[in-house]
This record gives sequence, structure tokens and C-alpha cells, in this order.
Amino acid sequence: MEFFETVRVRRSVRAYTEEDVPGEVIERALDAALLAPNSSNMQTWGFYWVRSPREKALLVQACMSQGAARTARELIVVVAEPRRWKENRDEMLRKLTANQAPAFALDYYSKLIPFTYGFRWLSPVKWLLFNVAGWFRPMVRRPWSGRDIEEVSIKSAALASENFMLAISAQGFSTCPMEGFDESRVRRLLKLTRADRVVMVISVGRENPSRGIWGPQIRFPREKFIKQV
Amino acid sequence: MEFFETVRVRRSVRAYTEEDVPGEVIERALDAALLAPNSSNMQTWGFYWVRSPREKALLVQACMSQGAARTARELIVVVAEPRRWKENRDEMLRKLTANQAPAFALDYYSKLIPFTYGFRWLSPVKWLLFNVAGWFRPMVRRPWSGRDIEEVSIKSAALASENFMLAISAQGFSTCPMEGFDESRVRRLLKLTRADRVVMVISVGRENPSRGIWGPQIRFPREKFIKQV
Repeated sequence: MEFFETVRVRRSVRAYTEEDVPGEVIERALDAALLAPNSSNMQTWGFYWVRSPREKALLVQACMSQGAARTARELIVVVAEPRRWKENRDEMLRKLTANQAPAFALDYYSKLIPFTYGFRWLSPVKWLLFNVAGWFRPMVRRPWSGRDIEEVSIKSAALASENFMLAISAQGFSTCPMEGFDESRVRRLLKLTRADRVVMVISVGRENPSRGIWGPQIRFPREKFIKQV
Repeated sequence: MEFFETVRVRRSVRAYTEEDVPGEVIERALDAALLAPNSSNMQTWGFYWVRSPREKALLVQACMSQGAARTARELIVVVAEPRRWKENRDEMLRKLTANQAPAFALDYYSKLIPFTYGFRWLSPVKWLLFNVAGWFRPMVRRPWSGRDIEEVSIKSAALASENFMLAISAQGFSTCPMEGFDESRVRRLLKLTRADRVVMVISVGRENPSRGIWGPQIRFPREKFIKQV
């Protein structure tokens, strides 16, 4: 499907028909998700495709049994996993070395990334360093805290989520991104750690034509949000 | 351009040629951004297209003068603006009433949204409520803090950013999302409040064919990130 057409047809659908979604449709959308831009290419994300009936039923409950989850044919949980940074950093260094990347790229991953993602006990020092230096010259201000690191991963996972949802629309099916879920129960279900953050649960299916969407798409005037400076 | 083709050709480009980007290309991509799914359709986002030479030079500095900003033809700052919730909620209620929306939708915006976005002084009470109730049955756990509210807006703004970047690629130009910026200086430049969060700065231009990208796109094996449960 043409790109702008895909963006136009994508709506959050809250009720699906009983038609199955072919596995290839999901796989193709997951592959599109993995191509999203992401912070320092650290790929600190995870995609859990919950298919077995027992786990699926528990996930629907953890999504407060909302219609978009209850009637979903497939459910995908997108997770931010900053704890992956070390492993991915090592892999990145191996690939860059194999590609004969310039020294500054190797330095970036061998020095700056560990300072950014690691040394959590240095958080107050990082804050001080960024903000004192920032008085005198432009200086990055984040991430300095653990929460900031989560935020970086969450942003990248959201970029990937949008690729996933558009890719489903481009194949004629629909999605609904859900944020109303019980994060503790989803973590337990997927055996995640407390360091992982559940970004959104995305339901997939064929739109129920009579009650999938509730009305025309509502967007406020563009002048409200777009400013030329 | 076809959707999957668009996803495939999108790369983060760090050096651009001197070719101008037609204004319509940016406008069209901004319109695509505004169609992204977003939390409760609250549209708590802002897009600042920084064009005047003085402001643009300051923004490049605030992006640590990195090549992707320095050589950019256009720069767009994506901001999460949770403070917009009240105004947008009122507008949403007006539109829903005009559309004769069902009572539960009106309740959602007149009761649940103010409880979620407002009453910051109740944060500890919200936390307690969510977590005590969550012992007994599935219960949403967030947002309970101000930071959680920021996170909700940031996620939506990231979804919109991905629409924007893909829309630029679909029109043959390139982008680079940047997170290495001085948030305090960007806030000052755009006259934002401390309640606003700068999500990313996106540069746009025509890819410099000799040094726009640094090598083949690196993605780790999909099995690492995609799990069937």
C-alpha cells in the first residue's frame, strides 16, 4: 500500500471480527518494527507475541478486559529493555570492527555508551556534571538517571511500535495500541524483570465494520500544534 | 512510495547536500505526524519548525553542533506538552457532544482524564490506590506521577515522529532523529515551559551520497527480540 494512504487508513480499532490474521502478516510487521530508528542503534527492545491460549487470556485480563484486547485475534506486547545495552553494545563493537568503522565510532560504543547506560550509582554526579557544564556551553542534560535511561528505550520502542501498526494497516488489517494495562501482571506473565518497561500492548485483527471504530477521526486544527520559529 | 519500501529506504542520515527541501514536503510530513495514534487522543504534542537563521544557528549549537544538525536543510523539534490536556480535553468533549458520542465516552473525558492528568498533589494516593487494588485484581499502575504523565506524552510524540520521518523518506528526502541536545537551551529557544519535554530534534535534507550514511544498516538477529509466548 502507498505510504500516505497507509497513514490515512490507520485507525485505532476497538472491536475485531473472528477472522484469523495470517502469521506472515504479523511476521512482516515485526520485521518492519525492527527497522525503526533507535537510540544509538542499541535496539533495547523486545516484542512478545502472545499466542498460547492460557497466556493470552491472562494478558486480556491484564488489559482490563477491554474490547480491543478481548476481541483481538493477535496480541503483541512491546517492551523497553534497557538491560540489553551491554550485550548489544558488544555485538555492535564486533560488527563495527568487522566493517572497519572509523575510530570515533568505536570510541562512541566503547566509552560513551557505558558511561550513558552504566554507572547508575554515578547518577547525581552525572546530573551535576551536565548542569554545571551547561551553564557555560551547550551540554546534553540527559540521560542522567535510571528513569531517563528507561525513557530513551521507551522512545525507541514507540518508534518501532508505529512501524508495526502501519505495517499491519498496509496489509489490510487493523490495530489498537493500549496503555491501560496492569504492568506488574504483564511483567509476571512474560517473566520480565523490574528493569523492563511495558511500552504498549498492540491488538491486531480484522476491523469489525459495525463497531470497530466509534466515529470520524478527531484531530484538532494543525495550527494548534505546528509552529514556525 | 509503497509502505514497506519506505521503511526499507529510511536510514538515519548524518550529512546532507545543499539542496533545499520544498516547504510542501515538510508540511505533508507534519500532516502525517498529526495522524499518529496517541494516548486517549489527547494530542499533547507540539512541532516546532525552526527556520529563521538566528534561531536555527542556536538550535544547531544546542544539538552539540553535530553534523546531522549542522548540514541539515530543515530542523523540526518534537515536544511533549502534557500541559495541553485541559484545553484539548474541553475541545474533545465539544466534538464528542457534537458527534452524539455514547455516555461512557463523555464520562471518560469528563471524569477519568482529569483524574489522570490533573490532581498531581494526589500522586502518592494514586500510587497507593493502584497498587493496593492491584493486589486483588488487574489494575492499571500508571500514570500516577508527573513523570509518568510526561512519559505518556513522550510515547505519543514518538509515534508521531516516526510518521514524520517515514513521510519524509516516502518523498525521497532523509532525516536523522537526534537525542543528543541541550534540553534547557532548546526550551529557552522555543519559549517552552519546564513542563514541556523535548522528545527529539529531527533534521531533514537530501542525503549526501558520499558521507550521509556510514555503512550498511546494522540490525541484530530478529530471534533476539521477537518471542512467541
